[in-house]
Amino acid sequence: MAGSSYGNIFQITTWGESHGAALGVVVDGCPAGLPLTAEDIQIYLNRRKPGQTRISTPRKEADQVEILSGVFADRTTGTPISMMVRNTSQHSSDYSEIANYYRPGHADYTFDAKYGFRDYRGGGRSSGRETTGRVAAGAVAARLLAEFGITLTAYTKSIGPIVIDMDKFDRDAILSTPTCMPDPDASIQAEAFLADCMRSYDSAGGVIECAVDGVPAGLGDPVFEKLDANLAKAVMSIGAVKAVEIGDGTAVASRHGSGNNDAFYMQDGQVVKRTNHAGGILGGISDGSQILLRAYVKPTPSIFSPQETVNKQGENIEVSIKGRHDPIIVPRAVVVVEAMAALTIADALLMNAGAKLEHLKKIYDR
Amino acid sequence: MAGSSYGNIFQITTWGESHGAALGVVVDGCPAGLPLTAEDIQIYLNRRKPGQTRISTPRKEADQVEILSGVFADRTTGTPISMMVRNTSQHSSDYSEIANYYRPGHADYTFDAKYGFRDYRGGGRSSGRETTGRVAAGAVAARLLAEFGITLTAYTKSIGPIVIDMDKFDRDAILSTPTCMPDPDASIQAEAFLADCMRSYDSAGGVIECAVDGVPAGLGDPVFEKLDANLAKAVMSIGAVKAVEIGDGTAVASRHGSGNNDAFYMQDGQVVKRTNHAGGILGGISDGSQILLRAYVKPTPSIFSPQETVNKQGENIEVSIKGRHDPIIVPRAVVVVEAMAALTIADALLMNAGAKLEHLKKIYDR
Amino acid sequence: MAGSSYGNIFQITTWGESHGAALGVVVDGCPAGLPLTAEDIQIYLNRRKPGQTRISTPRKEADQVEILSGVFADRTTGTPISMMVRNTSQHSSDYSEIANYYRPGHADYTFDAKYGFRDYRGGGRSSGRETTGRVAAGAVAARLLAEFGITLTAYTKSIGPIVIDMDKFDRDAILSTPTCMPDPDASIQAEAFLADCMRSYDSAGGVIECAVDGVPAGLGDPVFEKLDANLAKAVMSIGAVKAVEIGDGTAVASRHGSGNNDAFYMQDGQVVKRTNHAGGILGGISDGSQILLRAYVKPTPSIFSPQETVNKQGENIEVSIKGRHDPIIVPRAVVVVEAMAALTIADALLMNAGAKLEHLKKIYDR
Amino acid sequence: MAGSSYGNIFQITTWGESHGAALGVVVDGCPAGLPLTAEDIQIYLNRRKPGQTRISTPRKEADQVEILSGVFADRTTGTPISMMVRNTSQHSSDYSEIANYYRPGHADYTFDAKYGFRDYRGGGRSSGRETTGRVAAGAVAARLLAEFGITLTAYTKSIGPIVIDMDKFDRDAILSTPTCMPDPDASIQAEAFLADCMRSYDSAGGVIECAVDGVPAGLGDPVFEKLDANLAKAVMSIGAVKAVEIGDGTAVASRHGSGNNDAFYMQDGQVVKRTNHAGGILGGISDGSQILLRAYVKPTPSIFSPQETVNKQGENIEVSIKGRHDPIIVPRAVVVVEAMAALTIADALLMNAGAKLEHLKKIYDR
Repeated sequence: MAGSSYGNIFQITTWGESHGAALGVVVDGCPAGLPLTAEDIQIYLNRRKPGQTRISTPRKEADQVEILSGVFADRTTGTPISMMVRNTSQHSSDYSEIANYYRPGHADYTFDAKYGFRDYRGGGRSSGRETTGRVAAGAVAARLLAEFGITLTAYTKSIGPIVIDMDKFDRDAILSTPTCMPDPDASIQAEAFLADCMRSYDSAGGVIECAVDGVPAGLGDPVFEKLDANLAKAVMSIGAVKAVEIGDGTAVASRHGSGNNDAFYMQDGQVVKRTNHAGGILGGISDGSQILLRAYVKPTPSIFSPQETVNKQGENIEVSIKGRHDPIIVPRAVVVVEAMAALTIADALLMNAGAKLEHLKKIYDR
Repeated sequence: MAGSSYGNIFQITTWGESHGAALGVVVDGCPAGLPLTAEDIQIYLNRRKPGQTRISTPRKEADQVEILSGVFADRTTGTPISMMVRNTSQHSSDYSEIANYYRPGHADYTFDAKYGFRDYRGGGRSSGRETTGRVAAGAVAARLLAEFGITLTAYTKSIGPIVIDMDKFDRDAILSTPTCMPDPDASIQAEAFLADCMRSYDSAGGVIECAVDGVPAGLGDPVFEKLDANLAKAVMSIGAVKAVEIGDGTAVASRHGSGNNDAFYMQDGQVVKRTNHAGGILGGISDGSQILLRAYVKPTPSIFSPQETVNKQGENIEVSIKGRHDPIIVPRAVVVVEAMAALTIADALLMNAGAKLEHLKKIYDR
Repeated sequence: MAGSSYGNIFQITTWGESHGAALGVVVDGCPAGLPLTAEDIQIYLNRRKPGQTRISTPRKEADQVEILSGVFADRTTGTPISMMVRNTSQHSSDYSEIANYYRPGHADYTFDAKYGFRDYRGGGRSSGRETTGRVAAGAVAARLLAEFGITLTAYTKSIGPIVIDMDKFDRDAILSTPTCMPDPDASIQAEAFLADCMRSYDSAGGVIECAVDGVPAGLGDPVFEKLDANLAKAVMSIGAVKAVEIGDGTAVASRHGSGNNDAFYMQDGQVVKRTNHAGGILGGISDGSQILLRAYVKPTPSIFSPQETVNKQGENIEVSIKGRHDPIIVPRAVVVVEAMAALTIADALLMNAGAKLEHLKKIYDR
Repeated sequence: MAGSSYGNIFQITTWGESHGAALGVVVDGCPAGLPLTAEDIQIYLNRRKPGQTRISTPRKEADQVEILSGVFADRTTGTPISMMVRNTSQHSSDYSEIANYYRPGHADYTFDAKYGFRDYRGGGRSSGRETTGRVAAGAVAARLLAEFGITLTAYTKSIGPIVIDMDKFDRDAILSTPTCMPDPDASIQAEAFLADCMRSYDSAGGVIECAVDGVPAGLGDPVFEKLDANLAKAVMSIGAVKAVEIGDGTAVASRHGSGNNDAFYMQDGQVVKRTNHAGGILGGISDGSQILLRAYVKPTPSIFSPQETVNKQGENIEVSIKGRHDPIIVPRAVVVVEAMAALTIADALLMNAGAKLEHLKKIYDR
């Protein structure tokens, strides 16, 4: 319980450090009989791969996934699915100097406080490369959800001051723009903004939004395992995320009830809602509308301008971070948000299977 | 795993419905030897009790706690602490009509979708009374944290458009104002604002802030069990919370790295920070500074003005909610946020006990 | 995680001490819609009640169960079912002297070693009364299993040297004999044997067997959550049990494979087995045959003859136990074994619901 | 939660099939700062390697472990330790015929019943090769326990009718005899017995005993997480084990209390026991004496003589198993029992860290 597992029934355990031999994940609890190939995983991993654009680190990693167990004849067997990606482009020497001091905004100091020492190379376990396992597992979860018509769409909503225009929403642009913005015009502006950041040896933050469509009403539990509570944890567990919103989020705090309640009405024999301020979740349980969440991501803490800090000897020093760093975390974190949402909803889908006697009667009908 | 348990080592299980016989909680995993009396619990429960002010429901409940197990000679024994509060003022007849329709903004519809039927009386398990068990358990957690010099302070930061002035911060006012605002002037304005809401048969939302002081560096884990991830879940699991922020929260997304990193320096032989944008957590692990979080709470969904909805027969209807309802959830949720934060940090304290060999050597030194 | 919870999805948490205010259990994860009344629980509790026969303690407890939550209109709601039994006949003064020394064969010493002190009254949490919560929860599990045609039958197989004759098996006798033996003749002999034990201030051990019929093939998981592994834990977690067997148990170790394998054949279109040495479980998964297990129970450690021990001051002393003690644990533990088996199989039934895509398709078919 | 994880704080997740690409384990929750090398693991893995003696399968596997994460500069970092062994000697063609029928005594039928299909090659996940991950993880646990002076000694107690003579106990013989018997004379007899079995195309069962020395009093919890309950689960989760005993085990059922209680007395200021019928555990908590347990192992179900069974088409057929099979499971399972015991006790050691306030005060003393 050092905390590298996530999920109750659809349960994953990730492992690996930035500059270790490899990174990976074990997915336990995926139902048997799901069609699954390495290609299904690779498509997701490619979306978080470094070295693809001007605004991402020049570190090049193939991040080629190997499925080591749990899949037979291109279907899941119900046993643990172990997946691994080898690290191939570690430049550990870049990091030898950070062994001795604490980078501001990073986990160097807290790791030392907790464990007494740390694998300092590239941030070790606190590196963004840790998300490799999450994304591989998220791809399996998304594949499962697809069987039930549930789809996820995460994208960059804003970078610094540049916000997308939802009226120009272009789904394809999420994968084709370097910013993962679904609005190509905004993306061009954001790239210019980021070029400025880099010129001034600085970095930027932004917002990621994720929509989940097709979720049946009834997923999530009433108290601690609320679907929104688990989504909040899932997303806040991604390094650099400092706030999470569900539906209208922070905006609800300044509203009246009359302007925040979503009216129900009947449409084609279904209970639907006139608005979706709630973001698809009522009382912790999905209501059948679109689930919508947002993650607020801090600027990359590794900046090249000089900063004040301390070293392990307890001396005040000034440092300038070196190495390969993205000026922004957001674009590569988009698929991580999508993966974490997929994992959370897949788990809720499985947890709900035993929620009522009627479900079990369908399964164990003899 | 219907989700009524919270925590990994310091683990609680709550139970009870708004109009059932009683509500309660079992706290398992509290260390033996902690001084604890019913009075320690009652002080917390009194802070969430209904029927105390003009802006809370007229339902009167003594909410007198009974400790049924796990405490002997005023100390915890290490075995489960079972605590219970009897319901005494149920007016179930008030709710008989909602048995048949779905209140907007409530969990009526989603409960029916999930379970096939529901205890509709007073919202059943989705009522705010569900938090009774959380608060009782949170009082135990807070008592444990006090042994280590860790203190929690939650308060109302804003109600509708009224925001407290931090320069006027008065800790005592949290307990003495009906709004739980630490700024008596703001509180008076907020009361006037709420009186307006009630006159127009409407309700309001607001923001709760919680500060945790004295947390040692090293609590929380690096990946899924990040301290901020667990705080986010803890707080988002409280009904009506729609957004959670850690430290500067949403604001970080529009910043540059140079303006968001907290510089380290040495003070009295300790590593400290010049600023605390991070809210006391780096890489999911406490850094020794104050932990700061905020919960954004939606307006009470039960409003007395007419609303559109559907009934169980699938007919579109118009309803006006009756019963006893607060015009705002925030003041009574303040202690719930504090309780959930206390539970999360107590659990992290225990989880961290086995984080390094050095800790175990201190315990098992023979 | 002080270990008072059991089960993964059908999850229970017990609480309470022998001489505290009450004992109880919270059942979380029971599917909604299950018909359930207090009477269903009481029938089970009555089977473990003290004070019923000459061979059980004269302590009289009504053990009247109160269902405090989770049941509405005589059906489970899917939310936690909290059940409680008040202690009414504590004679705490009987135990005041054991506060100061360690009874041989009891947990007095180990509790002090672990927690630093203990609720010594009647053994506190280590008393047989702790099983009250297990039995109440087991009654719910058994009620759930009954919906699927799964039935459990536990009984006393032997007491000291007296073993039942399976050819005389009389199911009704389990409930009508004071020994819970399904063989009335053996029961009479066992009573005489126990009377001798009591006359010589001594106690006796015995064996409990439990058969589970109607379990569909497919329950249990292949590695750590094997159905037999969980049954072993469930049964070994009952105080005084020192060995557990599945199917032919210890006998298999001296067999050849040819004499231990169960041949499969077809019968009425079903795969069945010629023999059942395996006790209904292959590779940790139920095979559709009867599940059979045995628990070996030690003699009551509280005996009235003098024994050597030490006190808290570290002095060697001699003691003669006083108080109210059964000369044998077995008969009252029979229903506890049945309850633990029911809980384990109910949990396996729920865990298996998500084992294959085909199951989920039946539930989420739209 | 397909059940491939074990442990509460010291938590492992195993993965891999007999004829897949690799097998492995992720150990999460191991304290930071523990000295650990691949050699520490390899020593354990070598003890379960196939192809070493006449009485084990001719399948040759290097079973060379690769540590992929969680260890830096030969010490554990507190992050997940991922370990892997490549499969190199799969002869999958040997198994193609069993794709279509159910081997008696194996999990073929139950896997199909549960998952709808299976990786039939070499038994897939139900193969004895699944224990590779357990043993690698057990080596880490044993390394941790060694820091606290806790040592484990597992060995073969009997094979068929041949039982070791405890008076001839020779610890070195465990590693040097092909039977893992600590009595070389008995080992020679057992080898002759097994040669007979092989000649008659049959197999044999036996008993494994495991002693754990140096366990401090206080490990284990009072109710469901009893140390003996967890040991029972741990050992029963090993394929082919059908009974588990703690201390005197089944023998206690026919004893009187006066002959089964272990008297306490003082020795060098310590509370010790005159006898150890209890096997070092009272009320689920270690008492400071040697912990002793036994596993009863069934004969290898794969035998070369003809057997009756059914195929997937539901036809009665007769089969003779082919392939590479040990005539006995016991010797190679000895290290697996030791590993599972080590994992269980390491977990109990960590769980106990938070059992009393006094422990935490030692850690968080500021």
